[in-house]
Amino acid sequence: MADSGLTRRRLLGGAAATAAAIALPETNAAARRRRRTKEADVVVVGAGLAGLTAARELVRRHRSVVVLEARARVGGRTLNEPIGGGKIVEIGGQWVGPTQDRVIALSRSLGIDTFKTYNDGLNVYYRGGLLIPYASGGPLGAIPPDPTGVADAVTALSKLDQMAKEVPLEAPWKARKAKEWDSQTFETWKQANTTTDAGRFLVDVGCEAVFAAEPRDLSLLFVLFYIHSAGDEENPGTFERLTNTADGAQDSRFVGGSQLISIRMAKQLGRRLVLGSPVHRVAYDRDGVTVESERLVVNAKRAIVAMAPVMTRHIHYHPGLPEKRAQLMQRYPQGSVIKCEAVYPDPFWRKAALTGQAVGEADPVRITFDNSPPDGSPGVMLGFIEGENARIWGSRSRADRKAAVLKSFATYFGERALHPTRYIEKNWTEDRWTRGCYEGYTPPGVLLDFGEAIRRPVGRIHWAGSETSPIWNGYMDGAVRSGERVAKEVLVALRGRRAVVQ
Amino acid sequence: MADSGLTRRRLLGGAAATAAAIALPETNAAARRRRRTKEADVVVVGAGLAGLTAARELVRRHRSVVVLEARARVGGRTLNEPIGGGKIVEIGGQWVGPTQDRVIALSRSLGIDTFKTYNDGLNVYYRGGLLIPYASGGPLGAIPPDPTGVADAVTALSKLDQMAKEVPLEAPWKARKAKEWDSQTFETWKQANTTTDAGRFLVDVGCEAVFAAEPRDLSLLFVLFYIHSAGDEENPGTFERLTNTADGAQDSRFVGGSQLISIRMAKQLGRRLVLGSPVHRVAYDRDGVTVESERLVVNAKRAIVAMAPVMTRHIHYHPGLPEKRAQLMQRYPQGSVIKCEAVYPDPFWRKAALTGQAVGEADPVRITFDNSPPDGSPGVMLGFIEGENARIWGSRSRADRKAAVLKSFATYFGERALHPTRYIEKNWTEDRWTRGCYEGYTPPGVLLDFGEAIRRPVGRIHWAGSETSPIWNGYMDGAVRSGERVAKEVLVALRGRRAVVQ
Repeated sequence: MADSGLTRRRLLGGAAATAAAIALPETNAAARRRRRTKEADVVVVGAGLAGLTAARELVRRHRSVVVLEARARVGGRTLNEPIGGGKIVEIGGQWVGPTQDRVIALSRSLGIDTFKTYNDGLNVYYRGGLLIPYASGGPLGAIPPDPTGVADAVTALSKLDQMAKEVPLEAPWKARKAKEWDSQTFETWKQANTTTDAGRFLVDVGCEAVFAAEPRDLSLLFVLFYIHSAGDEENPGTFERLTNTADGAQDSRFVGGSQLISIRMAKQLGRRLVLGSPVHRVAYDRDGVTVESERLVVNAKRAIVAMAPVMTRHIHYHPGLPEKRAQLMQRYPQGSVIKCEAVYPDPFWRKAALTGQAVGEADPVRITFDNSPPDGSPGVMLGFIEGENARIWGSRSRADRKAAVLKSFATYFGERALHPTRYIEKNWTEDRWTRGCYEGYTPPGVLLDFGEAIRRPVGRIHWAGSETSPIWNGYMDGAVRSGERVAKEVLVALRGRRAVVQ
Repeated sequence: MADSGLTRRRLLGGAAATAAAIALPETNAAARRRRRTKEADVVVVGAGLAGLTAARELVRRHRSVVVLEARARVGGRTLNEPIGGGKIVEIGGQWVGPTQDRVIALSRSLGIDTFKTYNDGLNVYYRGGLLIPYASGGPLGAIPPDPTGVADAVTALSKLDQMAKEVPLEAPWKARKAKEWDSQTFETWKQANTTTDAGRFLVDVGCEAVFAAEPRDLSLLFVLFYIHSAGDEENPGTFERLTNTADGAQDSRFVGGSQLISIRMAKQLGRRLVLGSPVHRVAYDRDGVTVESERLVVNAKRAIVAMAPVMTRHIHYHPGLPEKRAQLMQRYPQGSVIKCEAVYPDPFWRKAALTGQAVGEADPVRITFDNSPPDGSPGVMLGFIEGENARIWGSRSRADRKAAVLKSFATYFGERALHPTRYIEKNWTEDRWTRGCYEGYTPPGVLLDFGEAIRRPVGRIHWAGSETSPIWNGYMDGAVRSGERVAKEVLVALRGRRAVVQ
């Protein structure tokens, strides 16, 4: 089966030197030939936070587990990038904040500390050629005090917070106004509930920062669900908590980087975890489930698929999935974001009494953060290219993108930003095993007609991943919660009772 | 690799007796062991109308071609169902009409005739407990003359037709108002441009009949593009042409059934066509493309992938596809429809001077047609369960659905409808190689940011399928046009010039 037409590709080096090489045809053929079969109580597909959390919980309950991961690494949408001296920056998900209790409890149990996101001094806001420093964390939260738009934006966002409380987290499609809210885009609502260009700009930037998508891409109902989801039962989410640094979703960071949580869990799982082994096929019936991956076939009593909804389509299911699940997987796209970081000898903005946080229209970067290591050395400036900008800039050259990003940084923080010692970027849309970040979202009509399939087990297949979480949906905390939930669900099922289905 | 845990499944019979059995693990393993390698100029993935048309054109130009099809049959979303006496009914796409010149030319070249859809007598309209017979084909076209809503609906639909003309068929995202139109759902527009419940009901039914989706699911820009697309350059499409029987998209039918077009093309292709061989992997570089399918590996100069956009995600591409293409494939869901047909000794509604066409709120069936064979024997009543109704009714039992469908028929045509000799249904969402009909559609924001990727070749991979056609997008005619277009594109590329890219 290994044909000569493809053999030359091995000789090219480049691609073959990366993790993707695992998937090259000859390697596959070889892998298939030596592919073994294992037995386990539970097979977990995906070694991100959700899958690893689930596996760890099951092992603690003395169940045999095999975890299959497509990549040559663990951590899913979290990823550390070394920057020398034993230090790292995160090029995937990274922040935690109040009410994200499950990911914080997990990290503590693994001996991982948190530290506060650098937040001393003033933020800057840039629009219409004016650069305005401002103090964040006041009554406006993270909303910059644009003189012509802030009142407009605050009014609109407060309305959203109120509406969000009416959306049941376990079943957003049961909101009294679900049909009305899922029949329109967030853009339509924004147009009707704002009056100024500046107010609309502020809502747009907030939307892009949270969803890596434009207001036109999103169902209003999904936006409301997501806002409500950013908190626990006692502290329902608000748009402010989603976008704030201090006391918000960007409050703190993990010492050693967020990927360390997955790396430590992986270490505990040891040989139960198989990397570089994409799952092609899941066959299930009343007696069990068989998961075929590149390197291993696993026969188990239950399977957990812990991936973003749209990525679960990479697997062929036998028998085919029920139609609601199948059509949901067609309707849950991932956001569009490129995370860009520039490394400097020191965080020079701090000397100017700036936090390093900017909001502005110096495209392609509309949002920045100080992403330096805990000791502030070296200085790391982080900027996001999100939504439409990511779609435009993703197809340009890295050199063009680097120049544009540094120009954005310079607009916000001065010319020194033009001369980093290193430029790092990660376009999550290019990543074949993720194909978009920060998270999956739903356009209009999807929650209403298909939402109930999001975590409903299908035979012996159970679903995890942050997108299945009613709390902190789309965040690391949601991923961990989904792993804990699915582990409970599977334990109940293994004891011979029916799975707990929401 | 064939493990005992799955062997029992072969013994169960049922599933193993169907085409789906091809995909059972042992069969796969066996198939892989004996998998051969072939060489060809072009490999075509998908033996629907688009793929077969492309293959046929290439063979006529003396190119070597291999066509790989996942199913054990050809025809994609067209499918004949025998009803005895050598007669069939279609349980997939079936109608043709004026300006659908390419599918008609193709069928004629294959010796397949058309005949008029039965349309003698009056249609019926049912709402608010009243059954109103009416003559179709007048100035209102297919719009039922609801006394409280028809003027409202006609006004709205005329506006749509006018707006549709402003959408460039080759590049809908370049319409002057593209951003405005792609930022809202069709529902939002409908709410703002209708004033009566009955008018809205008529627009809803029309939307469901054309898209098998609800107005809330659809981008307004996509709806406008699709309307414009329903015609050729000289006769731009209108909503009326989409929904009309006489002179509209439901004007005529194929003698022997629409699938016969694909069956005859398949016969001409002979052993170039390989059935039951799903494609798992497409690897491409500067030198060629290698397509791995269940039964065969093909090395070729060019590949044509002729599938609905969302279904092209079933394949793993090496290297990964560009991000715009990858994210487009996450954002192009298939509609939801169950096609239901009841067979009677004779088309009894004809004796009451009725066409058999109904529009009404006797859910789950809101639209019916006389679908009897050309000679009118037996009588076949056809009803569609579409959009939200398909999503609700798809998960119920066949018996429940049959009872509900016959009750709908009886509401429109009387009690005799309750006693068919046979009931036939096809839920296209359940079909694992289609996962929804009639076609793919885009929610808001997709055409604007991702539309340009729809038929842009990726290296040596070219895209076909009705969803790639600027004319009669979503229809059999669009599929044939896409096959002709992609064949030209590939022929140019094979001659060593750059592919023609829209």
